[in-house]
Amino acid sequence: MLETHPADLTGVDIEKLAACIQACFECAQACTACADACLLEESIADLTACIRTNLDCADMCEATGRLLSRYTGQNQNLARAFVDTCAAACKTCAEECGRHADMHEHCRVCAEACRACLRACEELVATFG
Amino acid sequence: MLETHPADLTGVDIEKLAACIQACFECAQACTACADACLLEESIADLTACIRTNLDCADMCEATGRLLSRYTGQNQNLARAFVDTCAAACKTCAEECGRHADMHEHCRVCAEACRACLRACEELVATFG
Amino acid sequence: MLETHPADLTGVDIEKLAACIQACFECAQACTACADACLLEESIADLTACIRTNLDCADMCEATGRLLSRYTGQNQNLARAFVDTCAAACKTCAEECGRHADMHEHCRVCAEACRACLRACEELVATFG
Amino acid sequence: MLETHPADLTGVDIEKLAACIQACFECAQACTACADACLLEESIADLTACIRTNLDCADMCEATGRLLSRYTGQNQNLARAFVDTCAAACKTCAEECGRHADMHEHCRVCAEACRACLRACEELVATFG
Repeated sequence: MLETHPADLTGVDIEKLAACIQACFECAQACTACADACLLEESIADLTACIRTNLDCADMCEATGRLLSRYTGQNQNLARAFVDTCAAACKTCAEECGRHADMHEHCRVCAEACRACLRACEELVATFG
Repeated sequence: MLETHPADLTGVDIEKLAACIQACFECAQACTACADACLLEESIADLTACIRTNLDCADMCEATGRLLSRYTGQNQNLARAFVDTCAAACKTCAEECGRHADMHEHCRVCAEACRACLRACEELVATFG
Repeated sequence: MLETHPADLTGVDIEKLAACIQACFECAQACTACADACLLEESIADLTACIRTNLDCADMCEATGRLLSRYTGQNQNLARAFVDTCAAACKTCAEECGRHADMHEHCRVCAEACRACLRACEELVATFG
Repeated sequence: MLETHPADLTGVDIEKLAACIQACFECAQACTACADACLLEESIADLTACIRTNLDCADMCEATGRLLSRYTGQNQNLARAFVDTCAAACKTCAEECGRHADMHEHCRVCAEACRACLRACEELVATFG
């Protein structure tokens, strides 16, 4: 999709940008599904922090995936703020889900998606000037 | 992710469900990006209906992708309403973007994503009882 | 905000439209908060359907509030599909939260927000041609 | 709604929290509507940065309004990151809309909503430890 954009994307690392957009949407989906799966576990009372963190992370990943889908290299400061906050949400959620990864396969898969999105965010920000 | 869900998903076509979730998020991303690309075209004044339809479709695809990520076969009526409305949004957007597909590559790619999501919605609803 | 819109809104019932937009965002907020409050109840295991329905309703209310914020009387068919699906989500959530209204004040308040949004949706659709 | 929440909200300034949640949803609605109104202006070619900033701000306000609707005083660091990024988005949008406030009433109203949300964000963060 990015290759068809009429903007002058000189100075934008399109590969890293596209990877980060995709990671954001995948992480949003994983977090939404993990929150729902947690609801059905017998140990749900131990998973409330996990559900809440999943929902926070899903919302931030979606907002960031949307902003990055509109990113043309202008207003890099705002993009950096979104991506940094997204990375913070992914880190928090990866840690929380990681605590339950041995017990719940959905938490293990979700923690992986969060770590992948965290890396994609960090790699994108590293290309910013 | 669906394979890790603790719910009893008997009666749910998991393959079609997963395909529809993925198509929803991909279509949301394509529509968000197409709306933005339209903003930079010289012929922007002819693309305002396209931009609006892109944004409507992105919002509905996201809401549907989220609901389906929580779908466990219960409350099929509500799921059907979401997926039907998502299909209507995708159809409208595919037609509108299709009008500009010869002129703008991003509209051509977006129309394809909308048609793919429309098909995935129809195939999922066809599995409902 | 609607009064400042440059579109020709002849034929659009602006009062009903504005009321519905506001009800959608208020209901989205109430459902998001109720889902979270449910997480902390001792009886959480009885509230999982409520949490899920809250999240579905919040997502549809937001998508509908956004579409209606872009509504200028064109493409009434798509607007009707969104508003009808939003009404269905509100009805489902009002019923589910209503079941717990005696036990949990947040469910009582949320059920009220859902019924208010349902009414606003029905009143808006009644103005459509 | 916050008054009905079962969480122990000791240490949370409920009034400031509620004000910020409301400001976030109101700003999201104003930005969504302003982006759409811009599409219909004759001078649309001068408003593309405004539309993009409106959409970025709407997405961040919504994500923040949702997170804050789940806020119970835990994980203050993540809440701070969201609110700070929301404030940055509101500031950027208030400036961009402010440039067109003399020409377009919707930009003037939207800039006001952004400034109100910016203030509410700053006042909430000031209550954090």
